[in-house]
Amino acid sequence: MTKKPRYPTIYRSFQHPVNASKGLPMTITDVFETYSDDLKRVEEQVQRDLDSKAILVKKVGNHLLQGGGKRIRPLLLMISANLCGSNGPEAEVLAAAVEFIHTASLLHDDVVDGADIRRGRPVANSIWGNQASILVGDYLYSKALFNAVRLGSQRVMEVLSDTTRAMSEGEVLQLLRAGEPDLTEEEYLEVVEAKTAVLISAACRLGAVLGGMPNDKEEMLAGFGTDIGLAFQLLDDTLDYTAEQTKLGKALGKDLEEGKITLPLIHLIHKSTPDEAARIKEIVSDASLKKEDLDYILGLMGRYRSIEYAVGRATSYIERAKGRLSVFPPSPHKDALHAVADYVVDRDM
Amino acid sequence: MTKKPRYPTIYRSFQHPVNASKGLPMTITDVFETYSDDLKRVEEQVQRDLDSKAILVKKVGNHLLQGGGKRIRPLLLMISANLCGSNGPEAEVLAAAVEFIHTASLLHDDVVDGADIRRGRPVANSIWGNQASILVGDYLYSKALFNAVRLGSQRVMEVLSDTTRAMSEGEVLQLLRAGEPDLTEEEYLEVVEAKTAVLISAACRLGAVLGGMPNDKEEMLAGFGTDIGLAFQLLDDTLDYTAEQTKLGKALGKDLEEGKITLPLIHLIHKSTPDEAARIKEIVSDASLKKEDLDYILGLMGRYRSIEYAVGRATSYIERAKGRLSVFPPSPHKDALHAVADYVVDRDM
Repeated sequence: MTKKPRYPTIYRSFQHPVNASKGLPMTITDVFETYSDDLKRVEEQVQRDLDSKAILVKKVGNHLLQGGGKRIRPLLLMISANLCGSNGPEAEVLAAAVEFIHTASLLHDDVVDGADIRRGRPVANSIWGNQASILVGDYLYSKALFNAVRLGSQRVMEVLSDTTRAMSEGEVLQLLRAGEPDLTEEEYLEVVEAKTAVLISAACRLGAVLGGMPNDKEEMLAGFGTDIGLAFQLLDDTLDYTAEQTKLGKALGKDLEEGKITLPLIHLIHKSTPDEAARIKEIVSDASLKKEDLDYILGLMGRYRSIEYAVGRATSYIERAKGRLSVFPPSPHKDALHAVADYVVDRDM
Repeated sequence: MTKKPRYPTIYRSFQHPVNASKGLPMTITDVFETYSDDLKRVEEQVQRDLDSKAILVKKVGNHLLQGGGKRIRPLLLMISANLCGSNGPEAEVLAAAVEFIHTASLLHDDVVDGADIRRGRPVANSIWGNQASILVGDYLYSKALFNAVRLGSQRVMEVLSDTTRAMSEGEVLQLLRAGEPDLTEEEYLEVVEAKTAVLISAACRLGAVLGGMPNDKEEMLAGFGTDIGLAFQLLDDTLDYTAEQTKLGKALGKDLEEGKITLPLIHLIHKSTPDEAARIKEIVSDASLKKEDLDYILGLMGRYRSIEYAVGRATSYIERAKGRLSVFPPSPHKDALHAVADYVVDRDM
């Protein structure tokens, strides 16, 4: 942990405000501090975009924007753009667009899931009703595309429209596969990639597109985003079997109760005896989750080390993500991406 | 009605299959027959687009596509493109995209409205649930933009993103203004323009964009679309006070029961005495609609001629729409647009 960063001296002045002087790697706090000006401009863009004559857009939008999201997607886009030598206003527009697309998908997700709480706060639909969630989601989505189109870049629009198409296909796939206990790990990862990783990947890729990077570097940055997106979701899934609502805004066993099959459960069904697997599938298909059923599942997960398995998969995605960055020369922006990758392991994106 | 069309003889061979020989103006049946090849290619495009690995997309999509919609938007786009000298495959892609955006907005609308029946058939959300309606709507919307982006035209994307932004803002505005009995005619028309007319306008405008028309002709076609869109919605609104469910798939007084303020009601409140207006507002704000309340409103509408007022407004939009086409020389395509405009007055779009 005391390895010195290896990028040229010229970068030193504006980086690692906390740790650089001590020769330590960047932490996520350093990253947010380093890019605070970029993120501030993104916030300004977000606020301008929310300035709709429909007051409901502002209300719902602001509720979500104060909702504790860390703006990881805009941050990744700004770092990627900087890494690729682009720091014009286009990056801010796209960073806000990506955050809007993310927010729109949360709004629609919340209606689909019937969720009450996200990140420890009531979700928008339980305050303003499903109607507002659907329509404000549509508004944010269309506003994101509206702004992106105005940048006049065909490539940017291709990336964004690829992304939103994959996301919405992933959502439909997830709905179809809900409660299907024979879901394979591969099928599950396909949904996770489309639902979560694709947008994080797009945030990273767009930085490369803005910087006019050659194809190989664009692909590496996109792959970096995909990997940390997959890792993020796998770790998030484990919270359903490890977290306490008060601490992480997520109730224990909630996915399970909703019949959501995630990696720890897929692993467990795969590893358990036929009798155990039969009982697990019964519990999954039951609409309500009894305390003793949850305890039964948690006990088996402890025995078969299902949480450890999911965390292990996530960790290996993080390592692969970092490896992809080797095509870029040392720089503080690259260090920042490494720091974000490490942060995924203990964070809230 | 026996006026002869005045376009050059050269066009005669492929037009007015039924009426041309009798020297009569084109009917909507003639129009659909004349453009049947174009519409067939649009259908093929729609079917290709629905070919998703998520079977639900296909199911919900097909339910809607067999749902009796007349493909007026694709038809208008194909006629406009032909009028403007464009008949490449781009028009079909955009015609399908416009129909997808329309369908997506119907799906989300049905969830927002809690509707059970549309055009005499159960709506998608009462068969597959709100979840499917939201997510398949998102899918159709993103697929439409995905295909449109691939045409590589900045102007096309500007038109589409203007349109979807305006539509979603209109939806939010409508939600905010629901049940507000002091809604003015102007505020009401603003919502109608955004919700309905903007997309029909875009269908017409895109034909001009594909044909590389100068700005004035593009604006005239766009205005034509806006006008017939406004007329369509105003006439649709009157059905709530004149139609029978069995015939038109719309229950009498349904808008009224849901607190939807439309032009006949705005006119009625404006024209009635203070006592009458007070009672009307009471009825509007009541969640359930009693038979005697509906009869009271229908009686007053008869006395103050509110339906006639709304029909009159619609008719004048249709006349204005036709007038805008005077910038185009006589042609069968122009005649077809006239026929569509006339059709709006008795149709189901």
